[in-house]
Amino acid sequence: MIQVTVIQIDNYGPWTVTPNPRRESDLQALQSRLYGDLNLQFGAHKGLVFYTRFDNLIAITNGIDLETHRRIQDSIKNRYPFTISMGIASAETPYEAQKLATEKIQEHGSAQDKYRKEVLDVANDFILEEGYVQLAHIDINNVTKTLTDLESAYDAYLRINEIHLRLIKELKKYGAMVFFIGGDNFMCPCNGMTESDFIAIFGDIKDKTGVQLKAGIGIGKTAEDASNMADIGLELIREGKVEGQVCTLNYKNYNIRRKFNTLCPI
Amino acid sequence: MIQVTVIQIDNYGPWTVTPNPRRESDLQALQSRLYGDLNLQFGAHKGLVFYTRFDNLIAITNGIDLETHRRIQDSIKNRYPFTISMGIASAETPYEAQKLATEKIQEHGSAQDKYRKEVLDVANDFILEEGYVQLAHIDINNVTKTLTDLESAYDAYLRINEIHLRLIKELKKYGAMVFFIGGDNFMCPCNGMTESDFIAIFGDIKDKTGVQLKAGIGIGKTAEDASNMADIGLELIREGKVEGQVCTLNYKNYNIRRKFNTLCPI
Amino acid sequence: MIQVTVIQIDNYGPWTVTPNPRRESDLQALQSRLYGDLNLQFGAHKGLVFYTRFDNLIAITNGIDLETHRRIQDSIKNRYPFTISMGIASAETPYEAQKLATEKIQEHGSAQDKYRKEVLDVANDFILEEGYVQLAHIDINNVTKTLTDLESAYDAYLRINEIHLRLIKELKKYGAMVFFIGGDNFMCPCNGMTESDFIAIFGDIKDKTGVQLKAGIGIGKTAEDASNMADIGLELIREGKVEGQVCTLNYKNYNIRRKFNTLCPI
Amino acid sequence: MIQVTVIQIDNYGPWTVTPNPRRESDLQALQSRLYGDLNLQFGAHKGLVFYTRFDNLIAITNGIDLETHRRIQDSIKNRYPFTISMGIASAETPYEAQKLATEKIQEHGSAQDKYRKEVLDVANDFILEEGYVQLAHIDINNVTKTLTDLESAYDAYLRINEIHLRLIKELKKYGAMVFFIGGDNFMCPCNGMTESDFIAIFGDIKDKTGVQLKAGIGIGKTAEDASNMADIGLELIREGKVEGQVCTLNYKNYNIRRKFNTLCPI
Repeated sequence: MIQVTVIQIDNYGPWTVTPNPRRESDLQALQSRLYGDLNLQFGAHKGLVFYTRFDNLIAITNGIDLETHRRIQDSIKNRYPFTISMGIASAETPYEAQKLATEKIQEHGSAQDKYRKEVLDVANDFILEEGYVQLAHIDINNVTKTLTDLESAYDAYLRINEIHLRLIKELKKYGAMVFFIGGDNFMCPCNGMTESDFIAIFGDIKDKTGVQLKAGIGIGKTAEDASNMADIGLELIREGKVEGQVCTLNYKNYNIRRKFNTLCPI
Repeated sequence: MIQVTVIQIDNYGPWTVTPNPRRESDLQALQSRLYGDLNLQFGAHKGLVFYTRFDNLIAITNGIDLETHRRIQDSIKNRYPFTISMGIASAETPYEAQKLATEKIQEHGSAQDKYRKEVLDVANDFILEEGYVQLAHIDINNVTKTLTDLESAYDAYLRINEIHLRLIKELKKYGAMVFFIGGDNFMCPCNGMTESDFIAIFGDIKDKTGVQLKAGIGIGKTAEDASNMADIGLELIREGKVEGQVCTLNYKNYNIRRKFNTLCPI
Repeated sequence: MIQVTVIQIDNYGPWTVTPNPRRESDLQALQSRLYGDLNLQFGAHKGLVFYTRFDNLIAITNGIDLETHRRIQDSIKNRYPFTISMGIASAETPYEAQKLATEKIQEHGSAQDKYRKEVLDVANDFILEEGYVQLAHIDINNVTKTLTDLESAYDAYLRINEIHLRLIKELKKYGAMVFFIGGDNFMCPCNGMTESDFIAIFGDIKDKTGVQLKAGIGIGKTAEDASNMADIGLELIREGKVEGQVCTLNYKNYNIRRKFNTLCPI
Repeated sequence: MIQVTVIQIDNYGPWTVTPNPRRESDLQALQSRLYGDLNLQFGAHKGLVFYTRFDNLIAITNGIDLETHRRIQDSIKNRYPFTISMGIASAETPYEAQKLATEKIQEHGSAQDKYRKEVLDVANDFILEEGYVQLAHIDINNVTKTLTDLESAYDAYLRINEIHLRLIKELKKYGAMVFFIGGDNFMCPCNGMTESDFIAIFGDIKDKTGVQLKAGIGIGKTAEDASNMADIGLELIREGKVEGQVCTLNYKNYNIRRKFNTLCPI
């Protein structure tokens, strides 16, 4: 079971053009700051937030209770010119969890309903002890030499967007999500997927685009633990310390360096 | 002529994993803050920055001189754990300008060359007086009711990514770029394009996906002037004050409310 | 017992002038951002930070354990061009606690020792369950009409500084600290002090300066709980709901609206 | 002539307690962020802002015109839960300038008038070409060894506050202001003062407190130029490259390394 929080700025669209359209550089500064703050504040409790559409954000929040959500919601109200609503849900797959979480917000009214403010609702029980997060940190082999140093900044960006969309579509079949996290990096909440699933997807993308992807897969009680494990897995592949393009590490077993249902020789 | 600045964090990839992979929520907070700060600092001089790949950003900088670039570069060094390089170029189309700008950075070495630091180089003369910026602010008709309030947060995100990639590919044919700026909004530097070009592209996307796009197109001496005009054009369409899905406004003529080569009845 | 954390930027002075003095507006932006971030990050765990000297900050951290301190220390390293050291201590009075906490940092070397980095040391046991925080939120009666709307901005500032220094000196006799928190507001960690102590100090300041101070005093397990109670106490005085210039509320008893060793009729 | 801008948050006090007192750590994060942003945004035009009372700030703004002020005012409205008012004035001394600037705000109503919003008013003509800024960057000799490494964090803070208040009172006699800028540093806008004035004041403070102060004094067209010169002057004293405790540098003459009415041998 993974716990997902969907965060939505209340009635944001109308605000951006009232009384006149607001300066775009200010809006970009505002939205990126919200994203950064949410990462610091959920991050303080080992959660992880993805910017998604900036006015609708998706967070992995295993281990984070309702009171903490409410305190973050208050903090945004206290410092921003708008408020946020949050829906929280748990499910076997990340896709299913975000779907339930979105529905909890939608039940309370439209994103542009001016009376709907600071929704905080939960689809099902909180996962405080049980449950886990599985994250795949995916990147492109040799991206600096083959893309960044070679192509124009915009062509590299185009390439990243192509790969991202392809990953989104493939991974959705497994109930997984995948978000761009900068550079050539993608973070993929993927509870329930196996290494073979990733190997198959990466092989297919390699055949169709010539781009070789790799992934560290991390498993932990929280998004932070899982993401740390995924990062270390990715480093092991980069450094040639494991064979193949996928390496899974489980936070629980990491200290005793046991393998967790994985091809990765640790 | 449009002036584009390509901004690249120096040797960022290796830093993110030295000595160990850094916490992902911190990196997301750091990258989004850099993006926000660059928008405030270029925005102070009427420029506009797009996050692009977060470690490689693209800015529209007409009217912003070399000293101002250097002062922004210094300010980042003074407040961040890394430095940035910048390449600046002007061209008839945005795509061409970013290509020249990227090359100026690449000439000085790899993005992961640890000795290449704080490049600041210019491909050709600065556009201080001559030149102009043309920006199209594109959004999706009725997105709240058809997407945000109806679909799950992730499916809406998927949809936005599909449309974005389609726009990227179509607009590149015209030498234009297009960036996601949150919600259902895209900003498209598009010097040289006509309203008919957009009408054709939007018609084609409507046929293939059922999604109707619209665009306010703004023209001005700076990114801020152009973007303000584009925003007002989009509002005129939203409010039904102009017919069709495209409306162009020119900052120069805006006060005397004359039309600039446009279907838009102002 | 109150728990205090002293935070010190490592080797900051030399950095600000290497290789040349850095732009002052950047340094002010950097220092204020550090202060804001530390408040968000300790605040996520119900702590409260005071800017103090900006490169040496003092935080009230009851209930915040060593691992959380370490994670905040890491987060600063991950996002700033410098690192921070922290000393943690508990004592009967705030003054004594900060003294012990400072000593834990000083033991490891000079603030400008370039090899002393990221000290994290604890003077005595962590207060996780036992212990409490007592905070007095002090302000000036009728400051807007008597000062802000009447005097020049700088004279008002001078006045605030005079009152602050007077409070610092008086309160130190009781082992209490007092920090400026904006406007005409001071926050005073004051475990062990009584309402009579404050009444005596305020009477004395009234006699000598003509300025009438008041204080909401809050007691709670954490800085946040205590500070919320102090704020409510201050509001009760402002609204004339209690008599006198001091009102104490205890978080533990607040819900059942009992009085806690206080003149305040709640 | 020095140009000063007084910045005031509109109706801030009531907002902080509506509908209930807001969390103190959030308010501290909010206020420090405003301070940081104003420094970045005025800093983009070579101005410098001092936090003063956080809800009332004082900036040195020579060379910054009305439109730029308005754009900064808009940017705050676009990103914060409140708006700001600004009064701008020029005078022979900093104190006189801030007094005139404050009056321009006060004329429009009380700081807590809920209808008074976004005042932007100018007492006299803008100083765009003529005028200059003189800043003294003052610090304490050997502060790390005598204070930071020796005393408790709070006692060092007490000491800094004492010296600050003493400086405020002494310098006001000369029409100068002095602000704490972190560590053991003070920044003092001091148009019209001479090196002898500072030498006399520092001698007096040395006699009474045992603390030896020194100052780099910078002169330039903008706050940034003056502050850079002041910083370099201070470095020259620190490095023993000039005799005495005061060194003045003038930006205009700096490149040709001539002396400007100064004991400093450059």
